[in-house]
Amino acid sequence: MTASAFDDRQLRSDGSLRHLLSLEGLPRAALERLLDAAQALRPAALGGTALRRRLAGRSVCNLFFEASTRTRSAFHFAATRLGADVLSFDVSTSSAGKGETPVDTLRTLEAMGVDCFVVRAREDGAVAALAAAAKPQTALINAGDGRHQHPTQGLLDMLTLRQAKGDDFSRLTALIIGDVRHSRVARSDIAALRTLGCRDIRICGPASLLPDALELQGCTVGHDFDAMLDGVDALMMLRLQRERMVEGLVPSLEQYFVDYGLDEHRLARARPDAVVLHPGPMNRGVEIADTVADGSQSLILAQVSNGVAVRMAVMLELLER
Amino acid sequence: MTASAFDDRQLRSDGSLRHLLSLEGLPRAALERLLDAAQALRPAALGGTALRRRLAGRSVCNLFFEASTRTRSAFHFAATRLGADVLSFDVSTSSAGKGETPVDTLRTLEAMGVDCFVVRAREDGAVAALAAAAKPQTALINAGDGRHQHPTQGLLDMLTLRQAKGDDFSRLTALIIGDVRHSRVARSDIAALRTLGCRDIRICGPASLLPDALELQGCTVGHDFDAMLDGVDALMMLRLQRERMVEGLVPSLEQYFVDYGLDEHRLARARPDAVVLHPGPMNRGVEIADTVADGSQSLILAQVSNGVAVRMAVMLELLER
Amino acid sequence: MTASAFDDRQLRSDGSLRHLLSLEGLPRAALERLLDAAQALRPAALGGTALRRRLAGRSVCNLFFEASTRTRSAFHFAATRLGADVLSFDVSTSSAGKGETPVDTLRTLEAMGVDCFVVRAREDGAVAALAAAAKPQTALINAGDGRHQHPTQGLLDMLTLRQAKGDDFSRLTALIIGDVRHSRVARSDIAALRTLGCRDIRICGPASLLPDALELQGCTVGHDFDAMLDGVDALMMLRLQRERMVEGLVPSLEQYFVDYGLDEHRLARARPDAVVLHPGPMNRGVEIADTVADGSQSLILAQVSNGVAVRMAVMLELLER
Repeated sequence: MTASAFDDRQLRSDGSLRHLLSLEGLPRAALERLLDAAQALRPAALGGTALRRRLAGRSVCNLFFEASTRTRSAFHFAATRLGADVLSFDVSTSSAGKGETPVDTLRTLEAMGVDCFVVRAREDGAVAALAAAAKPQTALINAGDGRHQHPTQGLLDMLTLRQAKGDDFSRLTALIIGDVRHSRVARSDIAALRTLGCRDIRICGPASLLPDALELQGCTVGHDFDAMLDGVDALMMLRLQRERMVEGLVPSLEQYFVDYGLDEHRLARARPDAVVLHPGPMNRGVEIADTVADGSQSLILAQVSNGVAVRMAVMLELLER
Repeated sequence: MTASAFDDRQLRSDGSLRHLLSLEGLPRAALERLLDAAQALRPAALGGTALRRRLAGRSVCNLFFEASTRTRSAFHFAATRLGADVLSFDVSTSSAGKGETPVDTLRTLEAMGVDCFVVRAREDGAVAALAAAAKPQTALINAGDGRHQHPTQGLLDMLTLRQAKGDDFSRLTALIIGDVRHSRVARSDIAALRTLGCRDIRICGPASLLPDALELQGCTVGHDFDAMLDGVDALMMLRLQRERMVEGLVPSLEQYFVDYGLDEHRLARARPDAVVLHPGPMNRGVEIADTVADGSQSLILAQVSNGVAVRMAVMLELLER
Repeated sequence: MTASAFDDRQLRSDGSLRHLLSLEGLPRAALERLLDAAQALRPAALGGTALRRRLAGRSVCNLFFEASTRTRSAFHFAATRLGADVLSFDVSTSSAGKGETPVDTLRTLEAMGVDCFVVRAREDGAVAALAAAAKPQTALINAGDGRHQHPTQGLLDMLTLRQAKGDDFSRLTALIIGDVRHSRVARSDIAALRTLGCRDIRICGPASLLPDALELQGCTVGHDFDAMLDGVDALMMLRLQRERMVEGLVPSLEQYFVDYGLDEHRLARARPDAVVLHPGPMNRGVEIADTVADGSQSLILAQVSNGVAVRMAVMLELLER
């Protein structure tokens, strides 16, 4: 899963997107083009009929092998407001499978005229594997695969940071806090931050929740949240899966909040204009305090709104040719 | 939960609806305005494309913390036929929650551009609590909260009665039969009947299924169905939840039918032109006999059709400003 | 369930379709008219906006008492691309029932303005029973009822065969292999093949999975797959439900593949231009080998695409009057 291996899976020879599978290996030009497009779509993204002809007559299928309401809803609204027909189903709860292989499910829906699949999968690389089986004109969007990537989340995070802090990521200090090891959001964020030229990426979490050092090359890694806050522009919180406690990776939710929860005291140690991001759904009182989540430095709802525009931009680049 | 407390939650200072949370406290003018609007929408409510531009580009979300197919379907068709985009999900069965608070779920969907939430909740007052957390331009419709209110059901019942019996509710004798204690439908019906000037509201059921006397002030309350039928214009049946038997509130479904089931013999004791309503889904043979449910005095399917028009009228008043 | 009994249930006196309940008893003229219409719709069936006005303002409800993603999706896309509003729900998993009778569920949705119901049911004849309770202007499409019929699958199979082998079914040799006893697909295929004039219908499977001889009159029945392949134009595979093994009707999935699985060696014994059909979802390695499923003689994905056009043709004939 090196960058170059992914490049030709998701990019055409002219540099345009064929699928969106990963932000790792996505060239800066493509990434910035998507952010620019999303920014331009932003005023019309949340309603209205201005964009309804863009994908009229095209079909988008939300194919979720792992349940998700939030991401699926964002893709649903994005596709619908572009005029596409949307069919959503959870393979996890539906009879889609009945022992059928995921590739057969994909090809069946493709044969019904689906132009674009938004796929969430449990296994790393599963969306790329499906993309490899798709017809040339079919586009796949990775809506999260295992611990690997969640590229539209990474894009919306970058768009949110850019709106708050400007285009020049080389001047940004970003701190990612929490369960980085299991987080596809963190992997997409780190890849995008690197690509956009961010030079001060800090990663903080308990040793049990951090990935191999190899993955974090060039980042500053630490376990002491308070010690890493100085000069930080952006605090990027991660959701703590409650099962991490059962697995023994975290002693207790209470202790986790003491060590890695973001409250107003910690936030005060970052830059005065630091912003706070969280991919949701939030565990209030576990990784983030109410005062911060609902405070003036929180961009959490801006992320959600940007998420619709980003998904529109991605679908337009994939389908509007 | 007094009327005045609810007023400013759901009404703007100019008397227009901001949310629809309860029929208790809804002024007669507002109630009649909604009924008039629904009546005017009736011819186009069940199909066609005449109304498609009214809410085009607006987004409606069915947010159901308690499962319901019937009510959700009615709102789905109402919104769709007005041209709105509809996203439905059961929070009860979906991953929407993942420990997320209902307010965070609401705000997330609001940030995706949802203009109107149709909410069903398990707890009394839960929809009003969500409404209090919504942005000023977001509208909430209570699609049933606990035992408290189900205002669109109350409205459609009034519309159905008005079509059958005319505008003058002061001349109407209405009898509500069954599990009034646990029924949000009954509470909405009683509030609306009072507001519209109905002076003879009779309430009948076993003592175990009736609410406190305080709630039924001004109503005639009794336990003997046969003794209460004289002069009745409208029989408003309630669904008996089967779990009432498990809870010991009802000795058996058979005995319940003997005591409180509506059959043709009982119906014959009411006025000859009496009409029968039921909010559905019906337990045939428990609270209502087949001969009555399917008989010429039954307005049960008219209620369903009116329900689409009523929901359209409510959404138009809330969203079309 | 004789042919004549079904005729007047699904046909109007002028020969047009009122419901589509069964291919048994459907006259050849009606069957060919639907195939011709589907063929003409084929270019526009898989996308685009050309057909959006045909059923604009009409409402289609997928009412599935048995879960199915594949068939429901095909109907969803067919109806959507014709401009209809579609509401789908699984009664199996939803609260639709709550003890409500299926007829009451149907009538409730009818009262909301549903023009056409696509119904999947567990019991033979259940869709016809619902159709008998529907209003005169309401159309029902059987999307599979028990072991009885799956008429749109039969139609799409005939369309696929016609595209590959031409209009003259009297020259066709068709071999249906597998669990014919429990298969509504097989029953619809056999009825359609007979109606279209196919004179050489062969049925092959273990004795435990074949129906009474009476049902297969005029067909060549056997248990030895290899002995039945000579001269075959079309191999119509059936899905083996895995529960047949639990029921003791099949010794093991491995043995089933040895006896009745279609691999390249067996396929080579049929005509060189023989085609392979499967209704999906496939059990690869149980009833069909990968090499055949993905081989050049497989029409499995063409069946899926034809399925959208066929459902469009059926809905148009039922609703566009």
